[in-house]
Amino acid sequence: MGSLDSKLPESPLGEFQPLDPEEFRKQAHQTVDFIADYYKSIETYPVLSQVEPGYLRPRLPETAPYKPEPFETILKDVQKDIIPGMTHWLSPNFFAYFPATVSTAAFLGEMLCTCFNSVGFNWLASPAATELEMIVMDWMAKMLKLPKSFMFSGTGGGVMQGTTSEAILCTLIAARDRALESIGQENIGKIVVYGSDQTHSTYTKACKLAGILPCNIRSIPTTADTDFSLSPKLVRMAMEADVEAGLVPVYLCATVGTTSSTAVDPLKPLAHVATDYGVWLHVDAAYAGSACICPEFRQYLDGIERADSLSLSPHKWFLTYLDCCCLWVKNPSLLVKALSTNPEYLKNKPSESNSVVDYKDWQVGTGRRFRALRLWLVLRSYGVANLQTHIRSDIRKATMFEGFINDDPRFEIVVPRRFALVCFRLNPRTRFEKGSTELLNRKLLEWVNSTGRVYMTHTIVGGVYLLRFAVGATLTEDRHVIAAWKLIKEAADALLKES
Amino acid sequence: MGSLDSKLPESPLGEFQPLDPEEFRKQAHQTVDFIADYYKSIETYPVLSQVEPGYLRPRLPETAPYKPEPFETILKDVQKDIIPGMTHWLSPNFFAYFPATVSTAAFLGEMLCTCFNSVGFNWLASPAATELEMIVMDWMAKMLKLPKSFMFSGTGGGVMQGTTSEAILCTLIAARDRALESIGQENIGKIVVYGSDQTHSTYTKACKLAGILPCNIRSIPTTADTDFSLSPKLVRMAMEADVEAGLVPVYLCATVGTTSSTAVDPLKPLAHVATDYGVWLHVDAAYAGSACICPEFRQYLDGIERADSLSLSPHKWFLTYLDCCCLWVKNPSLLVKALSTNPEYLKNKPSESNSVVDYKDWQVGTGRRFRALRLWLVLRSYGVANLQTHIRSDIRKATMFEGFINDDPRFEIVVPRRFALVCFRLNPRTRFEKGSTELLNRKLLEWVNSTGRVYMTHTIVGGVYLLRFAVGATLTEDRHVIAAWKLIKEAADALLKES
Repeated sequence: MGSLDSKLPESPLGEFQPLDPEEFRKQAHQTVDFIADYYKSIETYPVLSQVEPGYLRPRLPETAPYKPEPFETILKDVQKDIIPGMTHWLSPNFFAYFPATVSTAAFLGEMLCTCFNSVGFNWLASPAATELEMIVMDWMAKMLKLPKSFMFSGTGGGVMQGTTSEAILCTLIAARDRALESIGQENIGKIVVYGSDQTHSTYTKACKLAGILPCNIRSIPTTADTDFSLSPKLVRMAMEADVEAGLVPVYLCATVGTTSSTAVDPLKPLAHVATDYGVWLHVDAAYAGSACICPEFRQYLDGIERADSLSLSPHKWFLTYLDCCCLWVKNPSLLVKALSTNPEYLKNKPSESNSVVDYKDWQVGTGRRFRALRLWLVLRSYGVANLQTHIRSDIRKATMFEGFINDDPRFEIVVPRRFALVCFRLNPRTRFEKGSTELLNRKLLEWVNSTGRVYMTHTIVGGVYLLRFAVGATLTEDRHVIAAWKLIKEAADALLKES
Repeated sequence: MGSLDSKLPESPLGEFQPLDPEEFRKQAHQTVDFIADYYKSIETYPVLSQVEPGYLRPRLPETAPYKPEPFETILKDVQKDIIPGMTHWLSPNFFAYFPATVSTAAFLGEMLCTCFNSVGFNWLASPAATELEMIVMDWMAKMLKLPKSFMFSGTGGGVMQGTTSEAILCTLIAARDRALESIGQENIGKIVVYGSDQTHSTYTKACKLAGILPCNIRSIPTTADTDFSLSPKLVRMAMEADVEAGLVPVYLCATVGTTSSTAVDPLKPLAHVATDYGVWLHVDAAYAGSACICPEFRQYLDGIERADSLSLSPHKWFLTYLDCCCLWVKNPSLLVKALSTNPEYLKNKPSESNSVVDYKDWQVGTGRRFRALRLWLVLRSYGVANLQTHIRSDIRKATMFEGFINDDPRFEIVVPRRFALVCFRLNPRTRFEKGSTELLNRKLLEWVNSTGRVYMTHTIVGGVYLLRFAVGATLTEDRHVIAAWKLIKEAADALLKES
């Protein structure tokens, strides 16, 4: 890095043009081909990366280069150094977590978003970015048959956040500040919030970020009897006890499709409880919300008309690439009141006339990308019909896998399948104790994942260690599900023989 | 939307393949050409969009289409409906806010990031994404001559956040929780935080998000005498008074390059005060930090070795496109302690062995994109030499503009120029009162911006309304600065004649 000390008034390399349109064209075409080829050959890579921690540092220089390197060299290094360290989320053999789904249309939308690089903190800085987002959020709301109270064309509105964490944090702050206004800022320690033991871990984190005392974050236990859904009765009891103790219930997070096992909390009775206690009801439908564009799944949103906000992440099941989380709120003014800033350097006539939406006041940060383009391209390129087909096709494949499990007496379904996630385990009852069943399944998971041919993950619900087979990676076909099952059976054969 | 009610088991459109590599290749090539052509013709568009609020809704259908639409139609609509509503941040005539800079290399990096769509919440889910980010953060740290205590190769480490807001929020939470651990959770109302009246508006917002009482957010006044930099003496007095009042000073945000006028807070003496009071010192160098890769500007980071954290947004001046904010911390364990989650479904051997970094514990959300690719491609494609040239070239152009102002007696520089932002106003002293000078400049700004040929913004510092001419949009050449000045002079001629 010694060369940094030379105080050259101009680079020794001459004129520097970081964005020459013709060079851009050439290199971007090369990159398109690189990516298309990657997508074509993606099945040849181990789906779970097989590198060891720290693999990359010895392969790269210790400092950034002083002089430029050719693009071709860098692209070769992506192939040589980066790809081996990737866990290939787009592999058709990826069945871990929830899939992060993609599509050609969304890729093109992302290219356009990057192209404009508009920073849409307020309307004036990017009218199209703001207005397209408003329209797309209304389109999505209509596809989900949300009530008018969540739409701009009604009395509410929607905004695109990066992830569910931000959606929860923003609505929680709005609810918190509404409460503090009546009980006084100094009583933040009295605020209580509610979720279940199945609510995403980011919920507790968001509550802590917002200054809610850890002892006031209620995690209501769930059980197998209700498929691990949140009990309205227990929520009511908890709120009642808290009120009696002089505390103030403020926020309830219900989930449609929990992360562990896609449990669905019953919105209608939960909304009743929330209304009775004046609590903000947020519905986290990050994964399963997308399925609700199909009439046969819309029932899971019944009661949403009485909720205060709803979030859904199209980057999970709606083909948009990361990051894209739709948040609808019934009362945008509460959000804006809690999150608005008004520095002199951003003042402008449209904002002051209150004739526009300034999305910086609907989110944590100030800057924001033109995220709506991706979802707009997905909706237009595929149409609602194809998107319904896509959801149903994933569920059909998961149902097929569920059938394989049911047909093999050594295995069992642990939690009933509702969407495209199958929760199962190896359970040759006659021969194993509880502890050893868990160990057997841990071994099975490791055996399968270490082959690089399939990647699954696990969870524990109701004390039971289970394997999660999440169907839905965009490139997954029936044959991949069949091959995965074959591999899982092989693992079972090997492990049962061994023990 | 009536068609949504039909319960078709399969789409009437047949098989649906959202990511066919050959279709991807074809349409992505089309999009590359569309973007390259946009970049070539960008000067022909009005830089500030001339649409009225609500322009887009009547142009688009009220619902998402049921059937797919051809990509060509959508691309035509981007040209017809979206581009007129864009404020063109990449236009060479964009001198508003701070520029959001771009480059071919970063675009390609973003394409690759999208391509992989890895969700790097922990190491295992994407080893390459985690490790490349660690390496690139160390590279950047070395370019900025940060001490080893901010590097992974030393005792600290860095992480890429979306925006400064998140960087501030995360470090603030770490500082808050460290304090609460000693004074008790229930004493959150005693925590006091400090900044200046020039600190970015997002700082106050982040403090409110974190549950800091609004009455405990100190905004220390600045004056023209010190070019609107934060006075260590006043900070010390404020902390002293707060401690005497039984309050607990916890966090101080200093800025290197404020948004209004690029003021630089003196880090060294501020660090002394922070140390004396056991306060977390965060340095927000979102804009001007990038300049510190040039030895002649590195002085502005003097004292950084005594700070606790530093953030810098390469999407502002380092050619990376949005969103990319580098955050370095001296004590990652405090960040991780405050932000970690450990749900069963994410547990894995490498994480449990503590041999890896899980970046979900360094940020607000769980999911995260492979942001490091963009910055890596920028650093390698251009090299430190060209990046220094780039910074110096922008400053040279700003200096040229400053010269124009100084040579015209009707204008004046209001705050000394330090980087590539010129703060000036029209001030024909003999003929105008204070109030009317402001009015005149407001008119000048409106006159200039309404032409669509230049976009500038304003601010107020020390009670003075001034115009901000921020040089640095990637495509800006000398001729654009010269043309902008000509236009500003024309505006002045017209307005002075009129009055």
